[in-house]
Amino acid sequence: MFAPVYLDWNATSPLAPEVREAMLPWLDARFGNASSRHEYGRQARAAIDEARARVAASVGAHHTEVVFVSGGSEANNLFIKGAAAFMKPGLLAISAIEHPCVREPAKQLVRNGWEVIEIGVDAQGRIDEAAWQDVLARRPTLISTMLANNETGVLQPVQQMSAEAKAVGAWMHTDAVQALGKIPTDFRALGVHALTVSSHKIGGPIGSGALILDKRLEIAPLVAGGGQERGLRSGTENVAAIVGFGVACELAAARAKTDQQELMRMRDSLEAQLVSMGAQIFGGEAERLPNTSFFAVEGIDGETLVGKLDRAGFACASGSACSSAQPEPSATLTAMAVEERFARNAIRVSLGPTTTRENVEHFARTFAQQVKELRKLAAIAA
Amino acid sequence: MFAPVYLDWNATSPLAPEVREAMLPWLDARFGNASSRHEYGRQARAAIDEARARVAASVGAHHTEVVFVSGGSEANNLFIKGAAAFMKPGLLAISAIEHPCVREPAKQLVRNGWEVIEIGVDAQGRIDEAAWQDVLARRPTLISTMLANNETGVLQPVQQMSAEAKAVGAWMHTDAVQALGKIPTDFRALGVHALTVSSHKIGGPIGSGALILDKRLEIAPLVAGGGQERGLRSGTENVAAIVGFGVACELAAARAKTDQQELMRMRDSLEAQLVSMGAQIFGGEAERLPNTSFFAVEGIDGETLVGKLDRAGFACASGSACSSAQPEPSATLTAMAVEERFARNAIRVSLGPTTTRENVEHFARTFAQQVKELRKLAAIAA
Repeated sequence: MFAPVYLDWNATSPLAPEVREAMLPWLDARFGNASSRHEYGRQARAAIDEARARVAASVGAHHTEVVFVSGGSEANNLFIKGAAAFMKPGLLAISAIEHPCVREPAKQLVRNGWEVIEIGVDAQGRIDEAAWQDVLARRPTLISTMLANNETGVLQPVQQMSAEAKAVGAWMHTDAVQALGKIPTDFRALGVHALTVSSHKIGGPIGSGALILDKRLEIAPLVAGGGQERGLRSGTENVAAIVGFGVACELAAARAKTDQQELMRMRDSLEAQLVSMGAQIFGGEAERLPNTSFFAVEGIDGETLVGKLDRAGFACASGSACSSAQPEPSATLTAMAVEERFARNAIRVSLGPTTTRENVEHFARTFAQQVKELRKLAAIAA
Repeated sequence: MFAPVYLDWNATSPLAPEVREAMLPWLDARFGNASSRHEYGRQARAAIDEARARVAASVGAHHTEVVFVSGGSEANNLFIKGAAAFMKPGLLAISAIEHPCVREPAKQLVRNGWEVIEIGVDAQGRIDEAAWQDVLARRPTLISTMLANNETGVLQPVQQMSAEAKAVGAWMHTDAVQALGKIPTDFRALGVHALTVSSHKIGGPIGSGALILDKRLEIAPLVAGGGQERGLRSGTENVAAIVGFGVACELAAARAKTDQQELMRMRDSLEAQLVSMGAQIFGGEAERLPNTSFFAVEGIDGETLVGKLDRAGFACASGSACSSAQPEPSATLTAMAVEERFARNAIRVSLGPTTTRENVEHFARTFAQQVKELRKLAAIAA
């Protein structure tokens, strides 16, 4: 079977072998509905309890603060819409580089009388301090800023921001989907009221994620019904996915402390080569995730290059995978004031636990070759 | 391993072997994000397209009418809240025996200015014709009535109701979660505007379901973001679950045409024995699903009996599994005017494709024995 080198870990990740192993019994003889009051149901319930404890421990939360949902997009929607539902319409502030699953529910709130403002970022993709102070002065009710950007990998000072948000009485949420497993991600230390994590970005299965939620905040469910997850997320619990998510969280928390130096060395070595070929690294001067490189080469279209790399056996992204159905240039780069023409050249390479030095070196050589070919074609066309 | 006889198929079902087989590659080497524009992504996208065609064919819909979501509860919430979001607050009519994942979102709409009315049922659990005509006369905007009840298995005349609903300009939704795979379930033939189906009730995995939606109806997403599912359900598609759901739908559609006579014979034979022990069958005189029996014995508490049966190696339900976290008597029985004291005695047995005659006979013998013992205890206590 043709298996291209996978360099798109920020889009999704293969199941860790331990995760797959842990899941399989729940796709087989242990198939019960966790709400059933018989042996099959009790087994499922116990497995969910265990997974909940694992997720909680991995993000420094209490197990009662974990609300299992179907994934990161649902968790972000649950926080934004669920918190707003029980509040008088007010001011919601989100950073200008949030994932669409924060931006879009925010837009939906406008219909209900909310005002939504974006907090600008600097040229490196870091939240602009002056813009942030302006937002605080307007006393927002809700704030959502991501911990690490999915495209650039740039980190935001969420710990400091949540302290300042609290001081003005705002509820602070952070989307930590890309941070988990790559940098230490601790609910209590960050001081946020709510935090989103997702299973499939950390070697767990698609189909599970969680909103970690401060219990002082009352929110309305998106999916109401049978009353699962303390009434915050109804629907038969996806036991296999939750079990896998629990194991993946444990692995991710361990990895965030140990494996990252090697990933960063590989990434830095790759970037040194990319820069020597004339690439510009987006957010390269900011504190970033160790695994992510988002860059562009003058005169080389990102989509075209990703297509060529794909045919050459490398899977990487031209933009944020989740929104790649849309042909617009990256909203993150637009917010960073990158010229639209250049933003269209962007390529994202994201490494993961099984990425090897050989993978990265092979990629760098192939990349150089493809860029050379495309430049030759461009020269002929000119 | 201790494997109790599973007689709770309306709560959830084991994966059909064909389903499990079809899913496994997507939990292994084919792990891509369907939005990614490389080999892994394209494989995932193609698999989703194929599954969508299978689901559509199984329910008599066009593939563009299938909106994949995480399950039946989400599909029901999506219809109720999503349709209401783009309408002027009006009148929503639901039957008095809807699943909580229809009733609860309906209640949430009241906050937004909607009026919600329940359509009463008769003593057999069938929608009351006079109550229905009264509701129609009030010109509801939205109507939701289930095709088959999860507890009694009683069927509603949805085809006739949707024609009458259309005549008064209402949008008609039906929750067909319990019907699919047990009786022919055809979107076009039923004439509804929207229909909910779920994967894990038909031998597919937990974590997938669909809202089949008439494209003339514009609805707002519950989960907004990356724009997946034509903007109606954002979030990375759960490829493995969707693939499994597709295969399960195909099996279910075939089964609904062929396997049901044998299931009904087993169910009827069981009920004859139950009645001879003094049991009353709820909805026994109505047209019902072939696999479901909901009954009670005078003086024997349902929870207690289910516990004893569980220890004796039989998994069945005392109420609707999905809401069994709540200790209230079945809302379905309350709507059928069953006295609360007697409703607390209710037990549900639901059969499935792998249930054998031996299973059912063994259950009937054990049931008789347990009832005898409980009666003896009651006599001593009295």
